Amino acid sequence: MQKVDYRNVIFKDGFWKRKETLNHDVTLGAVYDRFKETGRIDAFSCKWKPGDPNKPHFFWDSDVAKWIEGASYDISRTHDPDLMEKAEWLIDRIEENQGDDGYFNIYYTVVEKNGRFTLRSNHELYCAGHLMEAAVAYYEATGRDRFLKIMEKYASYIKSVFMDGDGNVKPAFQTSGHEEIELALYKLYKATGNRDWLELFRFFVDKRGNNPLDPVEEYTQSNLPVRKIRRAVGHSVRAGYLYAAMADYAREFGDSEMAEACRLVFNDITSKRIYVTGGIGSEAHGERFGEDYALGNLSAYAETCASIAMMLFAQRMNLLERNARYADIVELEMYNGMLSGVSLDGDSFFYQNVLEIGDSQNISYSHTVKRRAKLFECSCCPPNINRTLASMEQYFYSKEGNAVYINQFGNSEYCENGIRVVQETRYPMDGKIRIKISGADLIYVRIPGWCSEFKASQGYAKCNGYAVFANPKDIIIDFCMKPVFVKADKRIKDTLGKVAVKYGPIVYCAESCDNIKDLNRIRLNITNPEWEITCDEVHCVCMLEMNGFEVDSPSLDLYSELYSKMINKRIRLIPYHMFANRDVSNMKVWIEKA
Amino acid sequence: MQKVDYRNVIFKDGFWKRKETLNHDVTLGAVYDRFKETGRIDAFSCKWKPGDPNKPHFFWDSDVAKWIEGASYDISRTHDPDLMEKAEWLIDRIEENQGDDGYFNIYYTVVEKNGRFTLRSNHELYCAGHLMEAAVAYYEATGRDRFLKIMEKYASYIKSVFMDGDGNVKPAFQTSGHEEIELALYKLYKATGNRDWLELFRFFVDKRGNNPLDPVEEYTQSNLPVRKIRRAVGHSVRAGYLYAAMADYAREFGDSEMAEACRLVFNDITSKRIYVTGGIGSEAHGERFGEDYALGNLSAYAETCASIAMMLFAQRMNLLERNARYADIVELEMYNGMLSGVSLDGDSFFYQNVLEIGDSQNISYSHTVKRRAKLFECSCCPPNINRTLASMEQYFYSKEGNAVYINQFGNSEYCENGIRVVQETRYPMDGKIRIKISGADLIYVRIPGWCSEFKASQGYAKCNGYAVFANPKDIIIDFCMKPVFVKADKRIKDTLGKVAVKYGPIVYCAESCDNIKDLNRIRLNITNPEWEITCDEVHCVCMLEMNGFEVDSPSLDLYSELYSKMINKRIRLIPYHMFANRDVSNMKVWIEKA
Repeated sequence: MQKVDYRNVIFKDGFWKRKETLNHDVTLGAVYDRFKETGRIDAFSCKWKPGDPNKPHFFWDSDVAKWIEGASYDISRTHDPDLMEKAEWLIDRIEENQGDDGYFNIYYTVVEKNGRFTLRSNHELYCAGHLMEAAVAYYEATGRDRFLKIMEKYASYIKSVFMDGDGNVKPAFQTSGHEEIELALYKLYKATGNRDWLELFRFFVDKRGNNPLDPVEEYTQSNLPVRKIRRAVGHSVRAGYLYAAMADYAREFGDSEMAEACRLVFNDITSKRIYVTGGIGSEAHGERFGEDYALGNLSAYAETCASIAMMLFAQRMNLLERNARYADIVELEMYNGMLSGVSLDGDSFFYQNVLEIGDSQNISYSHTVKRRAKLFECSCCPPNINRTLASMEQYFYSKEGNAVYINQFGNSEYCENGIRVVQETRYPMDGKIRIKISGADLIYVRIPGWCSEFKASQGYAKCNGYAVFANPKDIIIDFCMKPVFVKADKRIKDTLGKVAVKYGPIVYCAESCDNIKDLNRIRLNITNPEWEITCDEVHCVCMLEMNGFEVDSPSLDLYSELYSKMINKRIRLIPYHMFANRDVSNMKVWIEKA
Repeated sequence: MQKVDYRNVIFKDGFWKRKETLNHDVTLGAVYDRFKETGRIDAFSCKWKPGDPNKPHFFWDSDVAKWIEGASYDISRTHDPDLMEKAEWLIDRIEENQGDDGYFNIYYTVVEKNGRFTLRSNHELYCAGHLMEAAVAYYEATGRDRFLKIMEKYASYIKSVFMDGDGNVKPAFQTSGHEEIELALYKLYKATGNRDWLELFRFFVDKRGNNPLDPVEEYTQSNLPVRKIRRAVGHSVRAGYLYAAMADYAREFGDSEMAEACRLVFNDITSKRIYVTGGIGSEAHGERFGEDYALGNLSAYAETCASIAMMLFAQRMNLLERNARYADIVELEMYNGMLSGVSLDGDSFFYQNVLEIGDSQNISYSHTVKRRAKLFECSCCPPNINRTLASMEQYFYSKEGNAVYINQFGNSEYCENGIRVVQETRYPMDGKIRIKISGADLIYVRIPGWCSEFKASQGYAKCNGYAVFANPKDIIIDFCMKPVFVKADKRIKDTLGKVAVKYGPIVYCAESCDNIKDLNRIRLNITNPEWEITCDEVHCVCMLEMNGFEVDSPSLDLYSELYSKMINKRIRLIPYHMFANRDVSNMKVWIEKA
């Protein structure tokens, strides 16, 4: 199974088209403006001196690089001159300030001038990786290769320092302290065909947890050689980027041992350590994976970037194993864990995505769990949203010879080499999809994991979670979307006695502004819900209403009558990704059933 | 408020009359027979020699003493010549084998002849205490004072050894390793008027946790001086007997500091460490109080004797504080935690009373959690049931001048000094009670804690949980019994998402023989239960049936549809104390709600 280039897919009006447009109209500009205000943009001039304001941080290169990458995807469709100008200005500065040896890093050029490659935790290779991904994206979007060549020169230098060992610089570590360059080098190789980058990619993956220079630590997944990985550990974004790179590796080199490690760690995450929203990395401390089933709702960390990392990993696992269950996880993140990271007006962001807001919240470790912020000091998530929303097309289709896989659903068209596949649908408001096909012999349509019953207008076989249609032309498939109560494994303590509600791929939540302030006093009537489903045509989602009850505050007694008061009350639920878009409100995904 | 002698109360046909009759007809004989078979009875001849079978255990005296005490209460009503003969035979042996100094203990007479008062953990004073309680009971039931005098002689010896310090024996400890003698000495004082026993009682209570000879340990509540006690610790039967003795002490001496300790430790137990059935001491290891809210269902220890100890403590707290909430706890134990300790045929017993029987039970620490046993090696509970069921009358009434308190409900009559109070009721099948009164100015009727609404035929005031009627003659009161769903504090992990059902004072459970084998697959429909309540006229209780569902086994997925199958099913519930009276069955008190 092969990836389909995002440029061969067009979104038509619907959920993702609107998100993409909002990203173009608002979010790309908003993130750029704030990077400008905070000095991140001007830092690329490398003129900062001690005593100046806005001292560059060692991760600033990566923030802006992700913005360039996102802008590039957008430019491929919009050819927006303003975005192009901004990108070109940044590339000018990178070119100006690149060392003769190829090195480019703002922090080590203007702040710690003699510190190059001395501190593994300082994100040097991580920044290099994001700049490489940006360069590839910019090249593919515009055909201009200046940035690509700059980054190849840098890659060449990195190779000489880390892999060939023939330079004057002796690095104090062997692999990146924050994975990212691995994914980037593989992309650089695919874009240029230069096998040096493939070799360096292989080198960095192989050496992790497997060399004398790096510390042995779970935080950076450096505790084990990668082929021995069975359990997701440490910082969840780092981990997700590594596992995604491992999946690229397994597929590129046909490495079955690596594929097995990928499969097992994916299962580890999805069977024990992922929120119902797709959030991963439950622990704020170390932004890391918690213990098995330790998935608190009020305390959920679930970084936006970690959901994006999980999308990258899951997509590559699907390419590797051709199994729709991986695309299910992509979908879960798309509509929930990732998307809650940006406000409906496209202008503010969550870094951390809690599953509950309540009066008893301990927000000492973060002040922004109740209201999205315009910027974070560590602002990795907003530009990650930029690049993700600008390239959602990449997740929708894949191909294999003359067969096309539909992995995600939405009004869209895929055209390549005489193949044309059109989806006409109101998804995710409705599970009905009309698929028009020409030029393909087989079409694989993912049967979503959330779907217990579906109808198709023509016969099909089933394979790895896909419905397979032969000689297809015009298929109507209906995934019979309906509200579903979801329960969790009872080892997740914080979900006991509670249910989550899903409608199609979308996880719902209750906000107090739609219900009552103390959401601990609402109960869902799961035996007689009497659903009312309303389409919100602006946001292309359904809003839900159902039977429930308002009950008294719990008694302080050890044992007490279940409900001393129990008043019928309709409960209103909104998509989780839409929470915190009105006033500050309490919120619950997992709600007590009566 | 003063205790009413059990001999002034008569049960008429109903729940407790039948239990008392069964105790007379079956249980007293069954326990005696098994004590005979195991050598416990013959051990009183003190003829055992090394090499003989049935080597006496150091707690055997107490087992038989509790049986004599139970037989005595029964004799007071039945004058049963067989019971009298057995008791007299035992008293003959005690008299024969009592030392000239007054000492009597089988184990230290025939097994460890030189070990007297050397090992605190060997229950010597505990055995002495139970013999004293038996002697008081036998004296009060028969008017015969031989046994009483024997035990006063023993008490006198104990006082000389422990308190006066003028004997030849130097004890290796200062207070009992298992509390009991404290309660007994106070009873001995009340029966004889001899203040020596009051002094010795005071000495033993004061010295606990407060002397250099005893170990500092929670297990025997010897970690603190008793007035400092705030939290129930250690072995739960030991603790209950101590706290009961402390309540006697506080009342006798008007000691407000001691009363405060009693109040706080009572609150500690009832607010954090008691099962909904009244069971206390959740931990099998050490038969002790667990951490706050650590009240597992499958693992519940909840010894029968501990529930009896809690009845003794609660009754004394009510005498001390005149508050119906204490009598609520007595009632909870009467119908649940204590009563589950004996089978419906009166012939077999639970030592440990679990709140759940399931396939995943870890029964390594006990083999009798699923089926009652005829005898235990450590057989404290069966004769404790004997003495409790033979004297339930003591819990029903109390008095204060010309006022009478009705603390417990049941068909009964109380007569004393021109006062006559008759209860006519089908309680606990029905909450309606007709009370006929003559000779009393005030009648205090406990408003049960489980009752949220009641009606009375005449006006009343409320005081400390009692409805107070002035110049009463003929009152009809209806506590409007109905099935109630009970929830627990959410810190009790094992009850999350579950409810217990109570009907009046009785806690219910589901057994698999009435429902389905895997009780984890039933759900109660709490929003639409459609109760059916059926009277079991033989056992004088109601059986319940309600709407519910049978659902599929839970998915192994981390998240899954709440119920993939959900079939309407009537759920049948029986009183908890009646569980395990048919085949071995799974059982649940806390049942999932749909």
